[in-house]
Amino acid sequence: MSAAPAAAFPCKTVLASTIAKPFVQEVKDGVTSLGRSPKLVGFLANTDPAARMYADWTAKTSTDLGFTYELRQVDKDDLEESIIAANDDDDVDGIMVYFPVFGGGQDQYLQQVVSPEKDVEGLSHIYIQNMYHNTRFLDKAETQKSILPCTPLAMVKILEYLGVYNTLIPYGNRLYGKTVTIVNRSEIVGRPLAALLANDGATVYSVDITGTQKFTRGQGLKFKRHQVADVDIPLSEAVSHSDVVVTGVPSPSYKFPVEYLKDGAVCINFSSEKNFDPNVKEHASLYVPSIGKVTISMLLRNLLRLIENKKQREIK
Amino acid sequence: MSAAPAAAFPCKTVLASTIAKPFVQEVKDGVTSLGRSPKLVGFLANTDPAARMYADWTAKTSTDLGFTYELRQVDKDDLEESIIAANDDDDVDGIMVYFPVFGGGQDQYLQQVVSPEKDVEGLSHIYIQNMYHNTRFLDKAETQKSILPCTPLAMVKILEYLGVYNTLIPYGNRLYGKTVTIVNRSEIVGRPLAALLANDGATVYSVDITGTQKFTRGQGLKFKRHQVADVDIPLSEAVSHSDVVVTGVPSPSYKFPVEYLKDGAVCINFSSEKNFDPNVKEHASLYVPSIGKVTISMLLRNLLRLIENKKQREIK
Repeated sequence: MSAAPAAAFPCKTVLASTIAKPFVQEVKDGVTSLGRSPKLVGFLANTDPAARMYADWTAKTSTDLGFTYELRQVDKDDLEESIIAANDDDDVDGIMVYFPVFGGGQDQYLQQVVSPEKDVEGLSHIYIQNMYHNTRFLDKAETQKSILPCTPLAMVKILEYLGVYNTLIPYGNRLYGKTVTIVNRSEIVGRPLAALLANDGATVYSVDITGTQKFTRGQGLKFKRHQVADVDIPLSEAVSHSDVVVTGVPSPSYKFPVEYLKDGAVCINFSSEKNFDPNVKEHASLYVPSIGKVTISMLLRNLLRLIENKKQREIK
Repeated sequence: MSAAPAAAFPCKTVLASTIAKPFVQEVKDGVTSLGRSPKLVGFLANTDPAARMYADWTAKTSTDLGFTYELRQVDKDDLEESIIAANDDDDVDGIMVYFPVFGGGQDQYLQQVVSPEKDVEGLSHIYIQNMYHNTRFLDKAETQKSILPCTPLAMVKILEYLGVYNTLIPYGNRLYGKTVTIVNRSEIVGRPLAALLANDGATVYSVDITGTQKFTRGQGLKFKRHQVADVDIPLSEAVSHSDVVVTGVPSPSYKFPVEYLKDGAVCINFSSEKNFDPNVKEHASLYVPSIGKVTISMLLRNLLRLIENKKQREIK
């Protein structure tokens, strides 16, 4: 525990709904200027209450913002065929799948069944590979923007809002000098997020049960991308250097050891479980208990970008 | 143990080198008629002795058959860039990666970094998806053949050699009436293999630590593909119905419980470990202790097919 009394510098809790506001407005305006209601189809093939809640939120938010949302509940063994049918359906602008379905590699396979042209979550291989390599466009003429995975993208927007990105530093280096610990190295969020933040100049400790990796911005002359190395330092040490701690452990029993935090750290949880106990506020300066509402606005922003990309392809 | 004395019907051990012979010849002839030595690059980024042995075998076999083989040993953190460089190098005809590298989802990501145009292992998403859907060609004009994942393909060739495929039955249904248990449901071998065999008419029990799934040929009118269902039957029961048992458990301590085998079963192990104890011969009629040499010949066959596909694209 800190030597200073906790009450002296109270931690501020920042809600995702507050951070999401400008993006919600941007998306709303985007739909208005598009002049039609884009259709998003969500596939639910599990009985996970967290997925169901996320589906309900997506439905409510997208409908509120002028989109048409359709939830398709399918048996998991029919999911692949259902995705392919939606890929081929001109009435569908965007597709998302509420994972986990089978878990593991089979879910990673299913993600790739979603056509990149309709992938609002930004999980298609081409988008992830572009993100790792800091490649912003799909074409050489730079008319079609690559889609960023929506949860990592939401995290970047949150860090910008919280002032962790320093806007006095030139774009592309605005996390220079910052250290971040991320407890999660999934292919969907943790690893892409570590790469994104390293690409922006941060030193990132990426932690999972197999160990810790350190992501830094590499020389980047040729590939414009981060470097990764296994490191053998305890969590307590990584966290003691960290200006930001991000958690995403999908387990109700996991609690981040807040006693490792340096005073004034920024703490953000993207798990559907509460990875921080309330005493996180004794150490943190800013605390974001969940990020779902920002993620959904990024997802709808991606949908508008997919429609724009399609227009650009048709112009050619 | 069987009631009949083991010696009465001795089990025949069939070596992969015997089964591979016609394919080795086919590949050799292919290189001769091509008139140049295709270049295969293998990436080794781990210290796994099984991967190293497989690399040495690939080197020897491919060189013997007229290919140029180059092993590139790279640090695992440089693997992605090295693959991309080989993708872009016109001198390289085929690329393979000796997995595992990081394990799990990150390896699945890396597989997708290999260009489908050079993917001799047939692990690109488009090839796997085509295989699941029994789609044989990449283009509508049916000039470019889809590549099959080389280990599952090797297994089909082995089952053909062993007479499990019945050539009196029309093509596409030659496993009709056969039951197969596969102990492995990895995304690289077990699950694609189960789908392949089900597409050919077999009933397949696909077993891993999470449970058992039953693959059967579906109605297939629209999607031409198998159906999958979770089933709640013990391994002993699945195996007691099985004409063929295929194992692929990458652990030296795992031994298949041969007492479950029905007398006369065909047993095939594709793990680099010996999943069957020698007493498998008390029950099996045919036993294939390893399949690597068939797999390598399929890999080189795939390489020739990739070169043919490239020609077809250039004709257009």
